[in-house]
Order: sequence, then structure tokens, then C-alpha cells
Amino acid sequence: MNEVIKQLRERKSCRIFEKKEVQFEIRNEIIKSALEAPTAGAMMLYTIIDVTDTEKKKKLSVTCDNQPFIADAPLVLVFLADWQRWFDAFGYEGCEPRRPGTGDILLACADAIVAAQNTVVAANSLGLGSCYIGDIIENCEDVREILGLPEYVIPAAMVVYGYPSESQLRRKKPERFSVEHIVHQNSYRRLSVDEHKSMQEDLNIRSGFPDKDITESVRALCRRKYMSDFSLEMNRSARVYLDSFDHSIKK
Amino acid sequence: MNEVIKQLRERKSCRIFEKKEVQFEIRNEIIKSALEAPTAGAMMLYTIIDVTDTEKKKKLSVTCDNQPFIADAPLVLVFLADWQRWFDAFGYEGCEPRRPGTGDILLACADAIVAAQNTVVAANSLGLGSCYIGDIIENCEDVREILGLPEYVIPAAMVVYGYPSESQLRRKKPERFSVEHIVHQNSYRRLSVDEHKSMQEDLNIRSGFPDKDITESVRALCRRKYMSDFSLEMNRSARVYLDSFDHSIKK
Repeated sequence: MNEVIKQLRERKSCRIFEKKEVQFEIRNEIIKSALEAPTAGAMMLYTIIDVTDTEKKKKLSVTCDNQPFIADAPLVLVFLADWQRWFDAFGYEGCEPRRPGTGDILLACADAIVAAQNTVVAANSLGLGSCYIGDIIENCEDVREILGLPEYVIPAAMVVYGYPSESQLRRKKPERFSVEHIVHQNSYRRLSVDEHKSMQEDLNIRSGFPDKDITESVRALCRRKYMSDFSLEMNRSARVYLDSFDHSIKK
Repeated sequence: MNEVIKQLRERKSCRIFEKKEVQFEIRNEIIKSALEAPTAGAMMLYTIIDVTDTEKKKKLSVTCDNQPFIADAPLVLVFLADWQRWFDAFGYEGCEPRRPGTGDILLACADAIVAAQNTVVAANSLGLGSCYIGDIIENCEDVREILGLPEYVIPAAMVVYGYPSESQLRRKKPERFSVEHIVHQNSYRRLSVDEHKSMQEDLNIRSGFPDKDITESVRALCRRKYMSDFSLEMNRSARVYLDSFDHSIKK
């Protein structure tokens, strides 16, 4: 296993940071790694917002499901899927562009996330922890106002970075489901009840909780992550963002 | 600059591969790097299809805007944003889940792309080239059939990998737009005509084409990448995929 792969394997998320600034040069190294990421048609269908304003960080920590550690993170980047830049450019050059559509924005989300993951890998190599904040998709009206987002821009992800606290360094990385359940050969395979049970059981054993009640824990996860208020809000908000790209509705 | 960052910076896409198989151990290293990627709530909201079937590769090379190099790639992985697995699991455990929504699938797309980018970085460290195929979003009816996709699964990206040909190794990596245009401080900033022109001019100079006609090249890009048939098809197809998650329409 080479050093790059070792780091990819061992990297775990970090939510508690030391009170230590991220130096300008380090920040630049991380950001430049984003800009060199693969990008569709070399178009860079994203914009990165470097959030340094304390008030804005605080507001985002509230809109993102009330997670105060976001406000305390020394480096906060929002990765925006961005068609506004090119739509404007096409207009400036007299192309008479159509409006960006659903496929365009999915492609731009991919572009933005690819760039984001490069920063996560780069940060890790520099000793910085990081954490994705999927909750940036929530509360679109507030987030649009906080970050000044125009119509053809949507937040694909937020990532916070900083130097990990001792406790975070010691924290065990959560186990992943095994390759046989996540990787399928040639065709998608829906899992049977038995496969579902064995997928969970296998994870529980490797996590050191062989006796964990599967039904109970899946139900708890469902309540916490899927039927919860933040999750319903995320769906509402995403729908509003995507309406700007859905011209089959807005005729 | 450490080795990880050096590799992130220098990595460029590769579309022509040597006729050399990717050994099983190498494939495994790459796939394991995906599974260890950050994932929302440790849920792994994705499935990876390892496409080894020659006929399927050929079909995908056609549905993905007729790019024959896809059929010749020794390793082809499709990264699916997957809510079917958890929706089924929640059902098995009697959770009476709601149907997955637009926010859920955007989050799953992010999960899938984060995993994909880890494979790209891992592959690069092992001497393998790779190329994202955004066109996997097109022709949803055909792709659903080829890969056997159920309703709550959508392809977020396809990546092809292999050992780069000599010409690909020598190819200059395309320049990126500069940080001042891509990274904004605290708020999104729409570019003025002048900023748009200087963003393009700056790229042209660094690319060694200082006299390139900006209007002409932006118009050509618009025709080729945005007003083209594949782009319109991508928007149609993405709309069909997302309809499964849009319960504001389908009442």
C-alpha cells in the first residue's frame, strides 16, 4: 500500500478542532488542490466560497441543523455547483443560451464535489482534519441570502477544516459496509432481507458490537437520519433549488 | 509540497489506454479506497457497478455520447447514488419509510462522487490514468436496462481507468481558471463582462494562446458543450431520474 492509498484509507472525519489558525499558505495549498481536480470539459462548473466572516459562519452553523462546531472551524469552504458564471459568459458573448437544466446542474454538482474531495485529501496530507456538512442543502432561502447566491448556483457541499483535537485523533474510524454489498458485478442487485441482515451483522461484528439489535438500530437510524426534521427540510430546500433548473414545470 | 498534493496537482485525465489488464489486486486497492471515503452518516449512500461484461461496456460507450474508448477501458466503474438499499432496509425493519426525496438523492450523489474521486486519486498513485464520463447521466431508459437500476438509484458518475498510452503521458494538462475567479470571499460574486474577459484571457495566456479570440472560443464551447444534442439529452434524462424523487409533482 503506497502512502497516498494509506492516507485515503485512514482518513476519518473530524468535528472538533484545536484553537489554531490555518495559515494562509496552507489554505492556498488546499484550495489549489481543488482547482486542479478533474472537471467536465475543463469548464470548472463550480465556485468555492471561502467563509471567513464570523457572523456568516455562525449563521451557517444554525441553518446547517444547528451544529456549533461549524462556527468554530478555522477554515470553512462552500462548494457551489455553478452555471451562473457560464450562463452569464454565454450571454456576454452573444450565444443566446438556453437556461441551464437538471442534467447541467447534476454535472456541476459532480464537478464541485470532485473538487471538494481533493481538498479533503490535501488537508489530510497536511495534518488537517475535515468534515463534510451535507446540511448546507437545507434552508435554501437563508443560505441564498447569507452567501448571495444567484438563481443558477446551488450549494453542493460545505467542508470545514482545522487541526484535530486529541480526542478526534484518538477516535476510531467507523467501519464501512463490506465490498460484497457495495460493489456489484455488471448489474445492480437489490438486497434480500437475508443479505440486508448479513450486511448489518457483518458491520456490527467488525465494529465490535456483535450483539447489536439490527432492527432496533436500523429503526433508530431511520428516525434520526431519514424521518427527522432536518431531512424533510433538506428535501424541501433541494426541491426549491432544483426548480430553477426544471423547465418542464415552469412553463 | 508533499507527495499527496503533488499527485493531486499533476493528475490529468486519460482517455487512451494501453492494452494491459488491471490486475485483481490493483482493482481491489482502488475499490477499497472508495469504500473508505467520507460518507454521510456512515450510510454509504451509493453502489458501485464494476462493469466487466464486454457487451455492456460497448452499450455504455454508445449511450454515453458514442465514445468508443469506454468500451476499450480495462476497468469501468459506475458510481450510483443509491437510496434503494436503505429504502428496502427500512421497509424490511418495519420503519414505514417515506419515499426518498430530492435532497436525499443530492446527498447520495455527493456520497457517490466523493467515493469516485478517491478511486481516481488511488488509481493515479498506482500509475493508472482515469477519466470521468459525465455522459452516464444521459439515456436513462437504456442505462437503467443495461445496469438493472431500480427506481431509487441514479448514476452519479462513471469512471474508466487503465494504463496511459505514451501520448497520454506526454499530453499537457489543461490549465485551470485562476483562483481569483473561482474562489470568492464570503459571498458569491457575479462576474462583470470585464472580469469574464480577463478570466478567459488569463487562461489563454497561461495555455500559450494569448491571441485566441475569446468571443469565438466561448461561442464554440457553447455550441459544443451546451447547445449540443448530448447536452439536451442529459437534461431530459436527468429530469426523468429526478422525477422518482420529486413528490411535489407526482401526487
